[in-house]
Amino acid sequence: MPDDVAAFADLDLGRTARRGYPEAVYCAGKTPGQVAAIAAAVGARPEVVTLFTRATAAHAAAILGELPDACHDADAALLAWPPLPPEPAGGLVVVVAAGTSDLRVAREALQTASYLGRRTELVVDVGVAGLHRVLARLDLLRSARVVVVAAGMDGALPSVVAGLVAAPVVAVPTSVGYGAAFGGLAPLLAMLNSCAPGVAVVNIDNGYGAGHLAAQIAAPGEQA
Amino acid sequence: MPDDVAAFADLDLGRTARRGYPEAVYCAGKTPGQVAAIAAAVGARPEVVTLFTRATAAHAAAILGELPDACHDADAALLAWPPLPPEPAGGLVVVVAAGTSDLRVAREALQTASYLGRRTELVVDVGVAGLHRVLARLDLLRSARVVVVAAGMDGALPSVVAGLVAAPVVAVPTSVGYGAAFGGLAPLLAMLNSCAPGVAVVNIDNGYGAGHLAAQIAAPGEQA
Amino acid sequence: MPDDVAAFADLDLGRTARRGYPEAVYCAGKTPGQVAAIAAAVGARPEVVTLFTRATAAHAAAILGELPDACHDADAALLAWPPLPPEPAGGLVVVVAAGTSDLRVAREALQTASYLGRRTELVVDVGVAGLHRVLARLDLLRSARVVVVAAGMDGALPSVVAGLVAAPVVAVPTSVGYGAAFGGLAPLLAMLNSCAPGVAVVNIDNGYGAGHLAAQIAAPGEQA
Amino acid sequence: MPDDVAAFADLDLGRTARRGYPEAVYCAGKTPGQVAAIAAAVGARPEVVTLFTRATAAHAAAILGELPDACHDADAALLAWPPLPPEPAGGLVVVVAAGTSDLRVAREALQTASYLGRRTELVVDVGVAGLHRVLARLDLLRSARVVVVAAGMDGALPSVVAGLVAAPVVAVPTSVGYGAAFGGLAPLLAMLNSCAPGVAVVNIDNGYGAGHLAAQIAAPGEQA
Amino acid sequence: MPDDVAAFADLDLGRTARRGYPEAVYCAGKTPGQVAAIAAAVGARPEVVTLFTRATAAHAAAILGELPDACHDADAALLAWPPLPPEPAGGLVVVVAAGTSDLRVAREALQTASYLGRRTELVVDVGVAGLHRVLARLDLLRSARVVVVAAGMDGALPSVVAGLVAAPVVAVPTSVGYGAAFGGLAPLLAMLNSCAPGVAVVNIDNGYGAGHLAAQIAAPGEQA
Amino acid sequence: MPDDVAAFADLDLGRTARRGYPEAVYCAGKTPGQVAAIAAAVGARPEVVTLFTRATAAHAAAILGELPDACHDADAALLAWPPLPPEPAGGLVVVVAAGTSDLRVAREALQTASYLGRRTELVVDVGVAGLHRVLARLDLLRSARVVVVAAGMDGALPSVVAGLVAAPVVAVPTSVGYGAAFGGLAPLLAMLNSCAPGVAVVNIDNGYGAGHLAAQIAAPGEQA
Amino acid sequence: MPDDVAAFADLDLGRTARRGYPEAVYCAGKTPGQVAAIAAAVGARPEVVTLFTRATAAHAAAILGELPDACHDADAALLAWPPLPPEPAGGLVVVVAAGTSDLRVAREALQTASYLGRRTELVVDVGVAGLHRVLARLDLLRSARVVVVAAGMDGALPSVVAGLVAAPVVAVPTSVGYGAAFGGLAPLLAMLNSCAPGVAVVNIDNGYGAGHLAAQIAAPGEQA
Amino acid sequence: MPDDVAAFADLDLGRTARRGYPEAVYCAGKTPGQVAAIAAAVGARPEVVTLFTRATAAHAAAILGELPDACHDADAALLAWPPLPPEPAGGLVVVVAAGTSDLRVAREALQTASYLGRRTELVVDVGVAGLHRVLARLDLLRSARVVVVAAGMDGALPSVVAGLVAAPVVAVPTSVGYGAAFGGLAPLLAMLNSCAPGVAVVNIDNGYGAGHLAAQIAAPGEQA
Repeated sequence: MPDDVAAFADLDLGRTARRGYPEAVYCAGKTPGQVAAIAAAVGARPEVVTLFTRATAAHAAAILGELPDACHDADAALLAWPPLPPEPAGGLVVVVAAGTSDLRVAREALQTASYLGRRTELVVDVGVAGLHRVLARLDLLRSARVVVVAAGMDGALPSVVAGLVAAPVVAVPTSVGYGAAFGGLAPLLAMLNSCAPGVAVVNIDNGYGAGHLAAQIAAPGEQA
Repeated sequence: MPDDVAAFADLDLGRTARRGYPEAVYCAGKTPGQVAAIAAAVGARPEVVTLFTRATAAHAAAILGELPDACHDADAALLAWPPLPPEPAGGLVVVVAAGTSDLRVAREALQTASYLGRRTELVVDVGVAGLHRVLARLDLLRSARVVVVAAGMDGALPSVVAGLVAAPVVAVPTSVGYGAAFGGLAPLLAMLNSCAPGVAVVNIDNGYGAGHLAAQIAAPGEQA
Repeated sequence: MPDDVAAFADLDLGRTARRGYPEAVYCAGKTPGQVAAIAAAVGARPEVVTLFTRATAAHAAAILGELPDACHDADAALLAWPPLPPEPAGGLVVVVAAGTSDLRVAREALQTASYLGRRTELVVDVGVAGLHRVLARLDLLRSARVVVVAAGMDGALPSVVAGLVAAPVVAVPTSVGYGAAFGGLAPLLAMLNSCAPGVAVVNIDNGYGAGHLAAQIAAPGEQA
Repeated sequence: MPDDVAAFADLDLGRTARRGYPEAVYCAGKTPGQVAAIAAAVGARPEVVTLFTRATAAHAAAILGELPDACHDADAALLAWPPLPPEPAGGLVVVVAAGTSDLRVAREALQTASYLGRRTELVVDVGVAGLHRVLARLDLLRSARVVVVAAGMDGALPSVVAGLVAAPVVAVPTSVGYGAAFGGLAPLLAMLNSCAPGVAVVNIDNGYGAGHLAAQIAAPGEQA
Repeated sequence: MPDDVAAFADLDLGRTARRGYPEAVYCAGKTPGQVAAIAAAVGARPEVVTLFTRATAAHAAAILGELPDACHDADAALLAWPPLPPEPAGGLVVVVAAGTSDLRVAREALQTASYLGRRTELVVDVGVAGLHRVLARLDLLRSARVVVVAAGMDGALPSVVAGLVAAPVVAVPTSVGYGAAFGGLAPLLAMLNSCAPGVAVVNIDNGYGAGHLAAQIAAPGEQA
Repeated sequence: MPDDVAAFADLDLGRTARRGYPEAVYCAGKTPGQVAAIAAAVGARPEVVTLFTRATAAHAAAILGELPDACHDADAALLAWPPLPPEPAGGLVVVVAAGTSDLRVAREALQTASYLGRRTELVVDVGVAGLHRVLARLDLLRSARVVVVAAGMDGALPSVVAGLVAAPVVAVPTSVGYGAAFGGLAPLLAMLNSCAPGVAVVNIDNGYGAGHLAAQIAAPGEQA
Repeated sequence: MPDDVAAFADLDLGRTARRGYPEAVYCAGKTPGQVAAIAAAVGARPEVVTLFTRATAAHAAAILGELPDACHDADAALLAWPPLPPEPAGGLVVVVAAGTSDLRVAREALQTASYLGRRTELVVDVGVAGLHRVLARLDLLRSARVVVVAAGMDGALPSVVAGLVAAPVVAVPTSVGYGAAFGGLAPLLAMLNSCAPGVAVVNIDNGYGAGHLAAQIAAPGEQA
Repeated sequence: MPDDVAAFADLDLGRTARRGYPEAVYCAGKTPGQVAAIAAAVGARPEVVTLFTRATAAHAAAILGELPDACHDADAALLAWPPLPPEPAGGLVVVVAAGTSDLRVAREALQTASYLGRRTELVVDVGVAGLHRVLARLDLLRSARVVVVAAGMDGALPSVVAGLVAAPVVAVPTSVGYGAAFGGLAPLLAMLNSCAPGVAVVNIDNGYGAGHLAAQIAAPGEQA
């Protein structure tokens, strides 16, 4: 049975009106019972999209108990409700995973941008150790309004991509790598120090944040 | 007398054609003689804007010796040539300095965005210790296509601003603060961990990078 | 069967007389047997409150075996005996949890302050991404003699609160957040660098320390 | 000639009304011209105290040019105007410097608390390497409503003091010490990990913050 | 069945002859099979003491299979063979555990010094939050040729002890504490920055190293 | 059943042609299903060696399901296919493990160099605490074209070896050690700061990288 | 007048015989008088090359006073005597500077390799922000027996180069960059985490070490 | 004119009686005037030795103004008064400097041990890059009651020495080295992780602390 929401959360239901984007529910520090309570509450307002991020299997079961038709992308540890993304508007968001191990984060970014209303494309396994792979996708990359790049280890791919396209690059470091990657610190620092300007850095493994930022950058209109 | 450019640099004169934005000259690691040589070389191609960043007084003198009419903003440690920014296009870039000590970095961002072709506005001294100051500028902030926020110390302002506007926020941490700011590490981490999504982080004190990224985000058209 | 206390601990039974506040038992590095032995020893002196902090289920069972009527707050991982807090004296302690995930730490602070003899109030889920939530509680915050704020991620809430009230703010960083929060380091640094003066920082996730400090600040009398 | 304040600062003149304590002017990142402009502006409102902190000789000269009778404590790098502290109210603030090298920070704390309206006492050179020195001052320490302790190196003194008094201890780490003090990191961490509860930590070398926090803790009344 | 030692280890059987102290077997990175093989090998030379450190239950079982009468101190995760320590010589080694949680490390130090031939005494739970506890043991502390102090959290106890005795203090930081102890980093830095000279620091949780060093310091004779 | 490779990986099958060395499959961030799919794909091109590194038991089972005759070195967490290394060419690679606990990493380096076509020799347990052990192997060390040294703790062995031989030394730090080794940081820094020139450092625990680099250094011919 | 060498140094004159490469004199921690004394001593044995690294103008003057015909490369802060490098042998060493600011370190590497007897080539300003620049030099890079890459900021160039050539890459991080480069830490970590195998990392700004390692890798013969 | 001591210091004149060793005056954070005042005060009690450490030229002049016959070792930045060390007692202290650049710290240790009453010997330039140098001094090293080793860079020498002698080794890391030495952090960590037991670590560049500790270890008698 879900808990009583008021005891632990003050849902920011007006965020869509205020900011144009709905609040997401970060499951990591919450119990399944708390998440279920939130799921029950959002079930009453289908007019806004709700994302549940960092959802374990237990979280997912709790949410699906309240919102049985929610979309669940287990690889991205994400659920969305209503289950279908809105009709896309604005520019194209291209999401790039440097290696197979970065896919999990890349998919979280992709789903987030989709559910916030953007067209998206995925590119996989184009690390800089084989430059020909990224060069082969140049047309797609150059058609994007914004490119999201998820990379671990040396975090070099965002610099390379930013040097090849006019659009801004959202760089999300991943915690993939050997010891001196220090849980994503190495690619984080590399991205912050990109020798190519135009790289926007977000937190380690934060696919949600990358997708959200990309959706804002690719939003329709010039807004002023 | 300027040095011979070929001995130490391979100017990326085609960058404007390739990426849509010209290359900037980062003076910090170069001798005045090297910078003068580059200034002489760029003097031959007035069709693209050239920015000289992190220019000391000695660098500035060397550049002005070759390009006497270059615009020099000493507070921002930046020179630009040709001296006038291009006609603006795209959305509005609002640059916010949390405190007076952050102005230097904020001005570098502002000038960069201006010379890359955007309309810009500056807001000063609106740190979160007095929330009424930032709330008083909400109309201007909400009219921006992108907001740049320069802040040191606790780096809290980008989170607050991102919670108030729909546009993306480019956060640039500054090295302003007491000991445990560790040269900008504290605001850098705070910005990467913003509890409000939509914050794009760049390097410490990197006003140039912030302005460049903002110019790309506010670029005209949806580019796809 | 409880162990022999003298072999591993020298209980500071005189602390209440000396400092005015009793010693707490930090369970984290102790075996259930050791904790049980301490519980048995304190059972003989009901005139002082004893808190058992960071108690796992096994610790709790061991304590309840000796002190069956002890109060057990499993969310806060804390037990108290005698079970009822003393009659409150001194000023009001308001405890604020920035997000749902910070509740665990906030509750430990709240219980500690209560059992050390203060009136307490709890405020939940008022992170800076939605400023209206904290502004809506301003009257309560301004009625406090001291405000405790538990926050993870960017750790921005204590700065915002300190800018709004005259009372001191006790800031307790939590280990909630994505990779670059580095186990609470990011909010810890942000709080130490608060741009609003009046922020007293304690250790990461140290709700007990925050509650104890708050109880001392809100103590009755001016003590001199 | 002073600069135009509006171009770089938005003085928070209402802070005293809102928070009960005036805003201080942090000189470190400002030019003497900017500081002089602020001095000229505050000269028009003698009803509130203004503190100028981290003032170099050049800053001091600029301030004294506008406010010739300001009080200047060069050791503490601080100026105050009007020159006399207000009539004290509330509890006693005792400020302790562990060693001679910590005096500079301790004096900044002392002056700040005095100008915010508290009675203050100074204790010097009572490091834990000679415990008899701090034990000899126990009566004074126990008469305080709050004790400020400035210490570098191992940062052990706040733990020792907190174990001896009922009042809260404000611990301010200093950047005094050999290599592995890492600019104050070692005492900062020691203070955050104090084995005695009741220690409120502020930023490295932040005497101003320590004095402000102490003044709030020792404020008259229970405020609720 | 034990493995073949030569494939993975080159036992330094001559260390006692060369250095005066036998080699210890650090079990942490070895399989039970490897440890059993070493136990079998050392069983053939009862004239030197062998210590097995950081032994899990599985390691212990493997060793006891080969050396059934070995002494096993499970709290200290240590085994010794032959089972009885040698007749003591040299000065007294006093081992101090700041808190109950530091006992595990303190016992490893104590056992090591005993098996290397020194007289030892244990003092427990004398943290600086209650100074009277350590002052009560001053006579014992002053009778030592060397004092080992195991402490976590603020790591303040070695400074206090070193200020009270003429003998050198071996300080061993433990990984006990809240978040900002960072696995023992906080007490490690505090100990390295002790304001009292005469503190010899060893690795975090390295009770073996502390006991070995203490045994060398308290060795009989002046050796020159 | 293996997954569809194209969905998550773009195998760099041309790497051998381009660089002279085949791509390895880093299993750590991949599911057994993904690894099986790759194994199935590489089964079709026996003309190049494929290494699977950081393979858990589940990864190994998945690979052996597709390539039943693959060579599996469980200690090194590595599989190779085709099962036999190529005929060796070039210089000798000597791999040294400082201690038994470093063997796992050393074996990964040894196997990698062997499967990339070099002759290899292994030396074990020659840490600097007993210098005679490494001096006894000097003839073998001096016959190498390159020496790989795996060491944790103080990471001192590469400096000692580099001072004794003319060949370059590839140093691979391991995560073996007590607390202040910080997961391999201590030996990593020691190796980067070797007082003997000629030390090439690779990532912590990266035996594969060390073996690959050694194979390149010892490659036949002078290549120019 | 030069000092007496024996009082502060024990020149390793036999290093060339033992290791095949002469000892270099690291001037950074030495007085000009000490360096002059060493220069006088090495003047007596012209049969081996001596390098003086990290030489300030004062060091250089002191050396040239004793060895007037020494070769002085002020950009590389290096002197060599005898003034002419030996006849080259072995493979080609190509040294690459990512940006103009990295030239200083790159030149130190180049000179070192030359004076240790290798053929060398220099490539400048080929950072990854403009990939076409490095691709244009592919033939030269592929003709090398070893490539040295000096890069600051994101340290991405070694990964890119290592993915394009069969030879090993010696990566030397430089301290060039904005705040979050942390004095070279960012490129250092990036290089250690290179996603392309075959990268040998040396210390920050250590051009000497890079050149020495490269000379060893490109040494003539297979040495076994 | 010297300042009034009581205003900034509480000299621990009884330390010799209490601990057996006099207090030293750490000049680094004190003004010349303060140091002169202390010098004047100690001039009145010639029965105890006073050391002034970390004395700049200005400090030295101030001290010599009060104590004209004080011994001044400018290389060690140390002054001592009375000028002659006491008659030595206890065991021999051998002080080893790994390289010429470590001499400054080594001399501070040597002088300290001498003035605290021990016989001392100095060994210079015996880094592990040329092992034969340290092996050549083995007889002297083995005659010591304690060996002090000052080393920067990889900090490997204490491990090597500790493996060769029965006496304890006091290891003092120095801030000598290239970038990734991080001001002495690299040798500090190496020494804490020594694979040879018996290494006592003190703070970076803390020659005074090393000498004091060594004097205590080599003190006459077994003290119990």
